[in-house]
Amino acid sequence: MPELRKDPITGRWVIIATDRARRPSDFTREPVPRPSARFCPFCYGSEQKTPPEVLAYRSKGAPNQPGWSVRVVPNKFPALGIEGDLNRQGEGIYDKMNGIGAHEVIIETPEHDKTLAEVSDKQVEEALWAYRDRVLDLKRDKRFRYIILFKNHGEAAGASLEHTHSQLIALPVVPKRVKEELDGAKIYFDFRERCIYCDIVRQETLSGERLVSETDRFLVVEPFAPRFPFETWIVPKRHDSHFEESDAGTLQNLAGVLRQTLRKIDQVLERPAYNFIVHSAPLQEPQLAHYHWHVEIIPKLTKVAGFEWGTGFYINPTPPEESAKFLRECGLG
Amino acid sequence: MPELRKDPITGRWVIIATDRARRPSDFTREPVPRPSARFCPFCYGSEQKTPPEVLAYRSKGAPNQPGWSVRVVPNKFPALGIEGDLNRQGEGIYDKMNGIGAHEVIIETPEHDKTLAEVSDKQVEEALWAYRDRVLDLKRDKRFRYIILFKNHGEAAGASLEHTHSQLIALPVVPKRVKEELDGAKIYFDFRERCIYCDIVRQETLSGERLVSETDRFLVVEPFAPRFPFETWIVPKRHDSHFEESDAGTLQNLAGVLRQTLRKIDQVLERPAYNFIVHSAPLQEPQLAHYHWHVEIIPKLTKVAGFEWGTGFYINPTPPEESAKFLRECGLG
Repeated sequence: MPELRKDPITGRWVIIATDRARRPSDFTREPVPRPSARFCPFCYGSEQKTPPEVLAYRSKGAPNQPGWSVRVVPNKFPALGIEGDLNRQGEGIYDKMNGIGAHEVIIETPEHDKTLAEVSDKQVEEALWAYRDRVLDLKRDKRFRYIILFKNHGEAAGASLEHTHSQLIALPVVPKRVKEELDGAKIYFDFRERCIYCDIVRQETLSGERLVSETDRFLVVEPFAPRFPFETWIVPKRHDSHFEESDAGTLQNLAGVLRQTLRKIDQVLERPAYNFIVHSAPLQEPQLAHYHWHVEIIPKLTKVAGFEWGTGFYINPTPPEESAKFLRECGLG
Repeated sequence: MPELRKDPITGRWVIIATDRARRPSDFTREPVPRPSARFCPFCYGSEQKTPPEVLAYRSKGAPNQPGWSVRVVPNKFPALGIEGDLNRQGEGIYDKMNGIGAHEVIIETPEHDKTLAEVSDKQVEEALWAYRDRVLDLKRDKRFRYIILFKNHGEAAGASLEHTHSQLIALPVVPKRVKEELDGAKIYFDFRERCIYCDIVRQETLSGERLVSETDRFLVVEPFAPRFPFETWIVPKRHDSHFEESDAGTLQNLAGVLRQTLRKIDQVLERPAYNFIVHSAPLQEPQLAHYHWHVEIIPKLTKVAGFEWGTGFYINPTPPEESAKFLRECGLG
């Protein structure tokens, strides 16, 4: 008998197929190809092929020259424009505003032939520092209410360039999915006076069923009601609503656990395309007792989309208890 | 300058790229292949290959024999089980219940080699009658709170069999997307004492910018803040919250307008894969003044998905005013 499970944060019901659970080998494998060595605007020596950098960590060299370890540049084809006023206005019953925002690319390493799972922990840590520094800088622009930090890995997940990179979109609005999380977490908090993510950390540690791994500062778990097979969350153990307020120790710990988790996903699912997204509180909000930043990783394994898009209703062929077990027992600690 | 637009019902903001608007020819074309003539469980003579029919319109022949014009059968691999109790229960902070529901397939025509856009209006009308009859029948089962009626056309849109068919899933819960529509429409109604869909019909008729076509009973429009290029809605002009309460004249009119709209989409976008979904009020609700049933059609043109799934944030490269113009001027009336 399949099970209907409710995501405790957003209230979304999903069908979890328990009978004919799909194992990793049941999904069509389309490993992300190894990067090839053709011309790449994100490599050393191509710095002039991107818009001028807004941030770079470098031990030598001038801006927009080789020598950097992480480099952040505006997206060459931005989804939003950085200049101008929002000019919010109505159009009859509708509402609109100018598409003001920032759209940047975080080049996580100069090494063209490595994925984020393959660089050193130290390199991932530097990329996370770049995330943090860019958010803190853009946060000073009061037009922006939210920043989405995300990574598309592999063409099937929307990556158009193979050199490993993440993206950042600063928005004058809060995306719907984030608003749903905030609202759902607030309702829970009003009812119980506890953060729901803290409760999830507690329950998942106790039960262990959906636990993938645990460090000093983070829990890696498969959520109770995942929309997608092998959906994986990295949740800080200590309550904090804003990613950008993470201290050095937290970023260092996250770098290790993020890389290790991506390595496990690569191992169990044969280098799948994936997306990960940093979920954090809106920029202009103070520290929130009811919200808790975290990272959600979604391997791209299933193709069907239209039905889910149209209805908001998801059928997940792999119970999270199963996927957690595969990731836990993959032999990568 | 791109535009940020807010869907007036769900409150979702989307980016509409106005500068580099993508025309139909800019999308990768992958026309849905013509059906081939291999063995098919939905053709005459294969009636024993499906579970026994729950409904069929036939002028001759016994049940589960050839002679039908529309046939409805349980899905051979149902996502939910029809027998048993819901057994709602908690698991710590989580909620779950048994996966009780119905999952049926509506075989819209015995003709294997035609798409829904290619059969007669009369045949589409019969399929719509089957939708209605099945909903009215399943509605008597008080375990069910919602029925999703939808069609996946083409493999890219999730269809696993090429013989044209729709699906029905009866659920003991209301899907999230529908709940968002209901809640959003209610807030609007409480504020203005008008149905937001009726207001949309009025404004779109007046402006004409996003109008694709109009009949006695329906408006075909591109929504103001579509998530996807060429997303198209068919909205009844007369207020009604429940699809299954449509009268004969409405179903007849819908058949014509649905088929014509699918033909236009086939013409302009070269036979793309698509999904359509009937959005209707929950089964056990009385007639609602604030909600208005309608059909949403989503051609499958863009590949990127993970980012949108993760954030609920959409970037649409084609303004609806452009797509409406292409559909309006395609030469199919």
